[in-house]
Amino acid sequence: MPSETDRPRLAVIGGTGPAGRGLTLRFAALSFPVICGSRSRERGREVAEELRSTLGDVSIEGASNLDAARQGDIVLLTIPYEGMADTLPPLREACTGKIVISAIVPIEWREGKPIALRPEAGSAAEEAALLLPGARTTSAFQTIDAHQSGNLDYRLDTDVLVASDDREARREVVRIAGLLDGVRALSAGRLSSSRYVEEVTALLITVNRIHRVHSGFRLTGIEA
Amino acid sequence: MPSETDRPRLAVIGGTGPAGRGLTLRFAALSFPVICGSRSRERGREVAEELRSTLGDVSIEGASNLDAARQGDIVLLTIPYEGMADTLPPLREACTGKIVISAIVPIEWREGKPIALRPEAGSAAEEAALLLPGARTTSAFQTIDAHQSGNLDYRLDTDVLVASDDREARREVVRIAGLLDGVRALSAGRLSSSRYVEEVTALLITVNRIHRVHSGFRLTGIEA
Repeated sequence: MPSETDRPRLAVIGGTGPAGRGLTLRFAALSFPVICGSRSRERGREVAEELRSTLGDVSIEGASNLDAARQGDIVLLTIPYEGMADTLPPLREACTGKIVISAIVPIEWREGKPIALRPEAGSAAEEAALLLPGARTTSAFQTIDAHQSGNLDYRLDTDVLVASDDREARREVVRIAGLLDGVRALSAGRLSSSRYVEEVTALLITVNRIHRVHSGFRLTGIEA
Repeated sequence: MPSETDRPRLAVIGGTGPAGRGLTLRFAALSFPVICGSRSRERGREVAEELRSTLGDVSIEGASNLDAARQGDIVLLTIPYEGMADTLPPLREACTGKIVISAIVPIEWREGKPIALRPEAGSAAEEAALLLPGARTTSAFQTIDAHQSGNLDYRLDTDVLVASDDREARREVVRIAGLLDGVRALSAGRLSSSRYVEEVTALLITVNRIHRVHSGFRLTGIEA
């Protein structure tokens, strides 16, 4: 059995969307206890049950986003960018002192095309840090294909870059991200680097549309 | 012997800087005739001579940026971002109707740290297109490590993404970029995608600083 420290309880905020489901499944498969948060507690429980039935003997619970944030050791944000301003402020107290991971990509879809936005804070992750002032905010997981990650037969093949101004938090997120099969996790330095990673993701989404693929990305010339 | 069409004459604007030298050398080594442009004609000739002596039997000439642009079939921009507004307008006529490739990365160095800028036009390449209205502007080569590319013993290991609103021009730049050893060239669609590629480059530069490496990047899940 992994110790509690090795497998912190993950609260996935927006866990019923594609990115949230994928990360919930993959971390649950690695024996992390995961709480799948949703705007509606019922919806959270429904999806948690559905995901449990996919995997069998794993710990996935459903909850409201607020209850999930309260119960999680680490809080993972997988909500759409446009939901941040409404969803995050009520979670402020629940996130205080905790590692929060923004996987949010600031894009808007217009007529089926991705339009990358430029958050005033610099990046979605920096905006999350402003909305959750007591949290230990980090940025990660954007480059994992949201729509493929929920299919466990799909092998991930991507680097995940982890940015944070809190070095310990960054190290912990590098550790847990690196447990995912097919993922190499690398520090990208300070939280302000998240901007580049979010833009890389917009590039991947653009390339996916042009070449009809599901792309990831790897840095070359670097050993983890 | 390659035909003239296979090996168009490349004018490298800002060819005496690190990125310009590297691309000059690598394309000259592939039998492209290259004109190394500089603000000063003498400096252009000096560097051309130096580069020729590195390689032996190749065609590298030196010229002022304007003469280079006039003589080139394809015009490659490797000047620093802050030089664009001064350097490009005088080249307008010389570039009309020609494929222009922006390899410009909009960053500023402050106290040894790279600060990515956000050009009003969306990207440096789109800014180049505005400054050279008659040209067939494309974007490419940013992800090639400027400081390593001049060392021919250093093997490139990166994707080059090519963006343009001119499909024929994009295809031609994909073709010539793909001739470089260690490079896979891929279309990134319209010129507005250049923004993402320029940001990727800022990420590479950031990662290089953190991990003390020379990184490139590869998209995964895609066959060229």
